[in-house]
Amino acid sequence: MTFDPARRNTLQKIALAAGGLLLAPGFATAAQADPPRKLGVALVGLGNYSKLQLAPALLETSHCYLAGLVTGTPEKAKTWAAQYNIPAKNVYNYQNFDTIRDNPDIDIVYVVLPNFMHAEYTIRAAQAGKHVICEKPLAMNVAEGERMVAACRKAGVTFGVGYRLYYQPHHLEARRLVKEQAFGPLKFIESSFGFTRPAPTSWRLDKQIGGGAIMDLGVYAIQGARRTVGQDPVAVTAQAFTFDKEHFKGIHETVLWQFEFPGGIVSTSTTSYSAFVDRLYASCQWGWFEVNPAYNAQVTKGRTSKEEMSFTTKKYQQIDQLDDFALAVRNKTQPAATGEEGLKDIRLVEAILRAAETGNKIKLDLVAASR
Amino acid sequence: MTFDPARRNTLQKIALAAGGLLLAPGFATAAQADPPRKLGVALVGLGNYSKLQLAPALLETSHCYLAGLVTGTPEKAKTWAAQYNIPAKNVYNYQNFDTIRDNPDIDIVYVVLPNFMHAEYTIRAAQAGKHVICEKPLAMNVAEGERMVAACRKAGVTFGVGYRLYYQPHHLEARRLVKEQAFGPLKFIESSFGFTRPAPTSWRLDKQIGGGAIMDLGVYAIQGARRTVGQDPVAVTAQAFTFDKEHFKGIHETVLWQFEFPGGIVSTSTTSYSAFVDRLYASCQWGWFEVNPAYNAQVTKGRTSKEEMSFTTKKYQQIDQLDDFALAVRNKTQPAATGEEGLKDIRLVEAILRAAETGNKIKLDLVAASR
Repeated sequence: MTFDPARRNTLQKIALAAGGLLLAPGFATAAQADPPRKLGVALVGLGNYSKLQLAPALLETSHCYLAGLVTGTPEKAKTWAAQYNIPAKNVYNYQNFDTIRDNPDIDIVYVVLPNFMHAEYTIRAAQAGKHVICEKPLAMNVAEGERMVAACRKAGVTFGVGYRLYYQPHHLEARRLVKEQAFGPLKFIESSFGFTRPAPTSWRLDKQIGGGAIMDLGVYAIQGARRTVGQDPVAVTAQAFTFDKEHFKGIHETVLWQFEFPGGIVSTSTTSYSAFVDRLYASCQWGWFEVNPAYNAQVTKGRTSKEEMSFTTKKYQQIDQLDDFALAVRNKTQPAATGEEGLKDIRLVEAILRAAETGNKIKLDLVAASR
Repeated sequence: MTFDPARRNTLQKIALAAGGLLLAPGFATAAQADPPRKLGVALVGLGNYSKLQLAPALLETSHCYLAGLVTGTPEKAKTWAAQYNIPAKNVYNYQNFDTIRDNPDIDIVYVVLPNFMHAEYTIRAAQAGKHVICEKPLAMNVAEGERMVAACRKAGVTFGVGYRLYYQPHHLEARRLVKEQAFGPLKFIESSFGFTRPAPTSWRLDKQIGGGAIMDLGVYAIQGARRTVGQDPVAVTAQAFTFDKEHFKGIHETVLWQFEFPGGIVSTSTTSYSAFVDRLYASCQWGWFEVNPAYNAQVTKGRTSKEEMSFTTKKYQQIDQLDDFALAVRNKTQPAATGEEGLKDIRLVEAILRAAETGNKIKLDLVAASR
């Protein structure tokens, strides 16, 4: 049996609302509670990622729980509310969403909508005074991302991006191996993610709503390289290909790019909707390590030039991501996966596409860009 | 116990020279021999590759054997002649090398000299009327390679390049999987080969004598991609990096390139003297396969999206290469690894470096180029 924090919190709230009348003996009130109360998360958009990953993860988190729902589908609202013991007052639709500002149960709004709706709902959540996590890719473009970051700053709320990768054991181990120079200085990274041939009806093929391999999958490959290196790239070259123009209308079929990082580190990446690629490989001066697959799965093993690696993963890869964000809110610090980090990757997507289009090497200054 | 064709041939020759007087009962004369006589190979240059790979391989070949030596070191000549039963008349130095034309024991000259000497000795061997195999990389540049091909054509001799890769089981299997579309049409290839940090005294760091990662290791990655695709690339982009200019003087530390092939196939490659990379990966529309390592080792295993692969290798990877060449000479056909194939890869090396230098995408027409 898994401890159910959603149920616990709901029961607590009912108890408190009733002035303690329903309080069972030995059940602490919020004022006496130790540890402090879990922060309430509202999921905006109840698609598969919410259903299969985030909601179940929020049953396992230590510092936050599923407290609210935002959906345009009344039937979904009903099913979910019953399943997760969400009181009716914490269930919103897209019309009354902004009144979430008046709901003290909701500390954090998690935007899990189609990509083209990320900016609007992130900004509305910030304006409602809620801390916001937005799923990846952060935005449709840099301009949107900048508006999102600005809105969160202005509202004084914490802004995070839904990057499970930042918290997965194999990526943390990759960072450690590089940082501690376990195999000497890092020289080369391959970081690639692609899969083959979304159905013609898939949103992935529709650029207008945020489709395209580089936005969908490429951002993982970019993150993986940046996180492993522990620095941001300073230059990029890229190549983009669309051979099957019938199937891939207005989006690239395959995009390759090469980053140059400070200190003589080079990376190469591929993203594709017509090829399977899913690998993080790093060669240092005296050895290498690899995780393959790296991005699309619970990763429990890898290897180095010396030995096999194994990783202990949690049931849901988003648990640590959610808890890190909740702790950052509580402690008034920043999560590892900030919205600014998400925006960096959108800047890189745009730079990659510009490099591919022009054939030019593009110099990057992500720190200056985000000032 | 391994059957020793070198010893057998030597004994045969002694017997023949002695008018059959020394012929043991039951020992066939050349005239009666069936299968036909093995072709005699002279190794030019007795460095490690000759010593550890080619000479031992020539004890295992079915259609050729080690018949002669060319070396500038008398001590080596003595040791080798004793070890391989080479008669004194089949041992040459660089001064009397051209008189090899008068030696009927030598059918094939195999040039295993430092890269900057490939052209000279290939051309001299052709002019001496001998069939020639030249080690990789074929030449220092395209101009040299064209002279080598022209010299062999003019002399009417067969010209091969020392590409063991063309005959290794895992590369043959890669070609088969693509050709038979075992996983649907090929879409993407990664083919990379690099290792880390040759010693400061190594020839590998000296461009003047043929060093540099792309000439040394990159040609494998190019071959691997071309052979697996089964076609020649039609365009290339590339990036070259030298960060440690003290260690890597006048050569590139790392070179990345991207090929576009006919029919919507893309490849990406890395070669390096500061990173370990050794992989051939291919993604087709419905599955993938991988060999890793792919270039630097006896490769006995790989994997596909469906299953593990295993390969039965010969003791020396050069056996089939040598026999294919000998059979081509005997049958007046062409070996798989022709000198022209070697020249194609030098054309590609030059195109890659030009693409890296200019930042331009370079269109390729290797068929037209080799007309």
